[in-house]
Amino acid sequence: MIGSVSVGQRFGMLLRASEMPHSVRNRLLVGFERFNSSAAGSRIHHIHLKNGRQQFYPAEKLGLGDINENVLEAKYAVRGTIPMRAEELQEQLHKNPGSLPFTSIVSANIGNPQQLKQKPLSFYRQVLSILQHPEILDQGRGELVAKGVFARDAIRRAERLLKDVGGSVGAYSSSQGVLGIRKTVAEFITRRDGGEPAYPEDIYLTAGASAAVSYLLSILCKGRETGVLIPIPQYPLYTASLALNNSHALPYYLDERSGWSTNTEEIESVVKEAVENGIRPAVLVVINPGNPTGAVLSVEAIEEIFTVAAKHGIVVIADEVYQENVFSGAEFHSMKKILRKLQKEHPGIYDNVQLASLHSTSKGVSGECGQRGGYMELVGFSREVRQVVLKLASISLCPVVTGQALVDLMVAPPRLGDESYETDRLERQTIHNELDRRASLLHEVFNSLEGIECQKPQGAMYLFPRLKLPYKAVQAAQHLEMTPDEFYCLSLLEATGICTVPGSGFGQEPGTYHLRTTFLASGVEWIKKWEAFHKSFYDQYRD
Amino acid sequence: MIGSVSVGQRFGMLLRASEMPHSVRNRLLVGFERFNSSAAGSRIHHIHLKNGRQQFYPAEKLGLGDINENVLEAKYAVRGTIPMRAEELQEQLHKNPGSLPFTSIVSANIGNPQQLKQKPLSFYRQVLSILQHPEILDQGRGELVAKGVFARDAIRRAERLLKDVGGSVGAYSSSQGVLGIRKTVAEFITRRDGGEPAYPEDIYLTAGASAAVSYLLSILCKGRETGVLIPIPQYPLYTASLALNNSHALPYYLDERSGWSTNTEEIESVVKEAVENGIRPAVLVVINPGNPTGAVLSVEAIEEIFTVAAKHGIVVIADEVYQENVFSGAEFHSMKKILRKLQKEHPGIYDNVQLASLHSTSKGVSGECGQRGGYMELVGFSREVRQVVLKLASISLCPVVTGQALVDLMVAPPRLGDESYETDRLERQTIHNELDRRASLLHEVFNSLEGIECQKPQGAMYLFPRLKLPYKAVQAAQHLEMTPDEFYCLSLLEATGICTVPGSGFGQEPGTYHLRTTFLASGVEWIKKWEAFHKSFYDQYRD
Repeated sequence: MIGSVSVGQRFGMLLRASEMPHSVRNRLLVGFERFNSSAAGSRIHHIHLKNGRQQFYPAEKLGLGDINENVLEAKYAVRGTIPMRAEELQEQLHKNPGSLPFTSIVSANIGNPQQLKQKPLSFYRQVLSILQHPEILDQGRGELVAKGVFARDAIRRAERLLKDVGGSVGAYSSSQGVLGIRKTVAEFITRRDGGEPAYPEDIYLTAGASAAVSYLLSILCKGRETGVLIPIPQYPLYTASLALNNSHALPYYLDERSGWSTNTEEIESVVKEAVENGIRPAVLVVINPGNPTGAVLSVEAIEEIFTVAAKHGIVVIADEVYQENVFSGAEFHSMKKILRKLQKEHPGIYDNVQLASLHSTSKGVSGECGQRGGYMELVGFSREVRQVVLKLASISLCPVVTGQALVDLMVAPPRLGDESYETDRLERQTIHNELDRRASLLHEVFNSLEGIECQKPQGAMYLFPRLKLPYKAVQAAQHLEMTPDEFYCLSLLEATGICTVPGSGFGQEPGTYHLRTTFLASGVEWIKKWEAFHKSFYDQYRD
Repeated sequence: MIGSVSVGQRFGMLLRASEMPHSVRNRLLVGFERFNSSAAGSRIHHIHLKNGRQQFYPAEKLGLGDINENVLEAKYAVRGTIPMRAEELQEQLHKNPGSLPFTSIVSANIGNPQQLKQKPLSFYRQVLSILQHPEILDQGRGELVAKGVFARDAIRRAERLLKDVGGSVGAYSSSQGVLGIRKTVAEFITRRDGGEPAYPEDIYLTAGASAAVSYLLSILCKGRETGVLIPIPQYPLYTASLALNNSHALPYYLDERSGWSTNTEEIESVVKEAVENGIRPAVLVVINPGNPTGAVLSVEAIEEIFTVAAKHGIVVIADEVYQENVFSGAEFHSMKKILRKLQKEHPGIYDNVQLASLHSTSKGVSGECGQRGGYMELVGFSREVRQVVLKLASISLCPVVTGQALVDLMVAPPRLGDESYETDRLERQTIHNELDRRASLLHEVFNSLEGIECQKPQGAMYLFPRLKLPYKAVQAAQHLEMTPDEFYCLSLLEATGICTVPGSGFGQEPGTYHLRTTFLASGVEWIKKWEAFHKSFYDQYRD
């Protein structure tokens, strides 16, 4: 062992530290020692014990083997291998601009609109700017309004919110979130659901929707005995959270041929099989509009889901963060509204349903991902269970207060007659139109290409085209120890800088290959480059 | 069963839903049904199966018994019974102002300075205001500076941060946090530790320090086999997180008589006992300055802790969020600096130590609790383990970006020569002086009272006085099924509106009683009221 002195040698022992099992080494070490400071600088350490003399040498470090297996198990593809490779390429472009066949990375792997230069809504930011520094109004409201720095309604809203948060966004709020903001959310839901009332007591403000998922699954998963029904393909946050909670993902496949719709017979059979295997199906996750599929559920599909939930006493988590991202022709129906409809039509039958509906400021036309705003509405949960949710939330103290304020702004944008109304409406319209246009274009391009088939997008921010990869491409992937879809995404990235996520990260029917791409990147140049890449890829690997 | 129709009756079955075990009920329910909509409004539902005819009735709701026991087990006293009672009283004051013997609640239960009207530092808020709405600078920098709205250095900092975050605080950042901000943190640590270098790669920005604790314990706790050494008394976040991870808290008692110092022999014996009981002592938590004790660790005490860590291969979590809250006479030594010193003095012996040091924007003179900023530095962890931390962080996408910016501002405040320097220095000095003054006053008052003994505060935001409660008070508490300290805190709250946390929420030596109070509330009136309450409490219960 040239260049290293074994610890054993130093202390005249026989064994090297690295040759000893952790447990043995721990057992060798008892008592309490202090170094003799005169030994500093020497390679041999005389170690003194307060009451006597004793030696110790350092124990082995904790390594991967000492880490919680559930955490090791968790995977999150949206920030997985392909995006990590994209980061390396980004670095390379930074250091050596001419060294790659492209000049920038197109981050189509994640719904992060403002990274791709989508502008934040002005009204939001005016209010948040005042919330951070109310002294700014000391310049004089009149002058600020006259100069167009702040709209009158932005100032009014900021002042109301400051009062609601108790004077400063720098104070912890209640763990459930600021009451005044929860009231605004309840009013929004009531409006959205055609007058079906919502209550501030049932609203929990959260740091994005991911915090809500994490709370709910932590509470509802008891370990290996618990199963959670998740759609496949799914947003991998769900499988990751289930891995962390060591509970079973019970996959139910969405039907690609009918536009990624849910198949309730499939769900029923998954429930039945779980019960037969001694697994308690405790939760059913619905993502509507779908991520990564972009499908929007029909009223009938939602009713069927609730029927399963009512029959089996399954809690429904409705991930409705894309509720604003719906394209013309499709219509979003909130799970809550449909639940109330069923409860009204069939008294007593659906009263047992427990629904958690999630929303976020990261998507829609807000796109304020970095601000971490969100809420969940808990419907039908007992007071005891809601107290447990609150306790769990209180361990993280409170969701970021500016994110809470943003939820208020999202659910109550300027109204007709407000000074900001027209600007805000235009800004929203522009974002909607842009997304709509690029989604259609990308969809068309995909369906014009050999070996790609893509369902018409109805909502959300993604397309999830199916790749019919040639045998030679599959072989090439196997040689590189990759899945074929991973191979395609990596080739696309290396050739064009476009970063996507392989379907295997979301789950897909065995033997099928997909990828997820956002359509957030501006312009159409990148779409043309993708088209060219795809053709040459098929030319290279065609059977 | 007057007033309720059993589900069984409706379907002509024998069993009531509530009389059937969940599992039996699940097994009864197969296939896929749809309601016949003509049945709407009727109390009897004919339920049709697509291929045939079948009935179902709703299953039992998930209740407390179906919830993850670890979550049920977790307790978080800082937002526990006494603060919850305080909220009720607050509500009562709001509805019926004259109905209580006080006019407002003094929230001394939680370190939440801005709730108690501590003003945020102007420099921070100027920068954050610009970050939220950079268009505000379109008014003209010169004019804004001339009017005193923004200082030149605030504008410069905002512009640098905007560049670092890629243009908008509304975009997700990397899950580890914005690189430019991690660089500023590394520079700060290097400066703080007398030139011992820190690296941006080792810095992880987090949503306050609680997120860091949650990540670390999720990773390092493997369940019942894992033990985590925590000081007693401790900040209950730790026991709560351990309960969530179903791992053992291995308490080591701090020595009240010597100013709540650590006793390394005690720690060694806890380690030994754990190993004998088959529990792996994986982590040792140090809170310095102490919460709730206010003690500041000496260099020698820190060295001793690292010696235990090195000997047993234990990861050290150093909760150093109060590092700025140190009173005159005491000195804060960072764990990292002492570790490097030991590594230099005794080559090879301490190289195995893995240290996670946490900091937060919620404490110090920043007090920006609601903004959720923080960081952790990981020292000595392998690349593999750091990758796991990063993966876990990526599941929550990213810490709030404005909170990250605030970390930058906290660790790099205006410097001599900068326009904001003098104002900033004065604001900081004022906060420090106020805290110092009130801590001393409260300490004096406590020690002047019958049955209270309080260690001299050295740091943090709390006093943790010991209550020597008379036998009659202990009896009264027992009759009310409370711990005696809880009884004292509740009596204090009901009489004065002062909300504190009983020592039992933090842990204390059996047979001793304490409480934790902050000294953040402004003025001294509340201290006088407390004094009067205490005297009458003792008059009532004196033996």
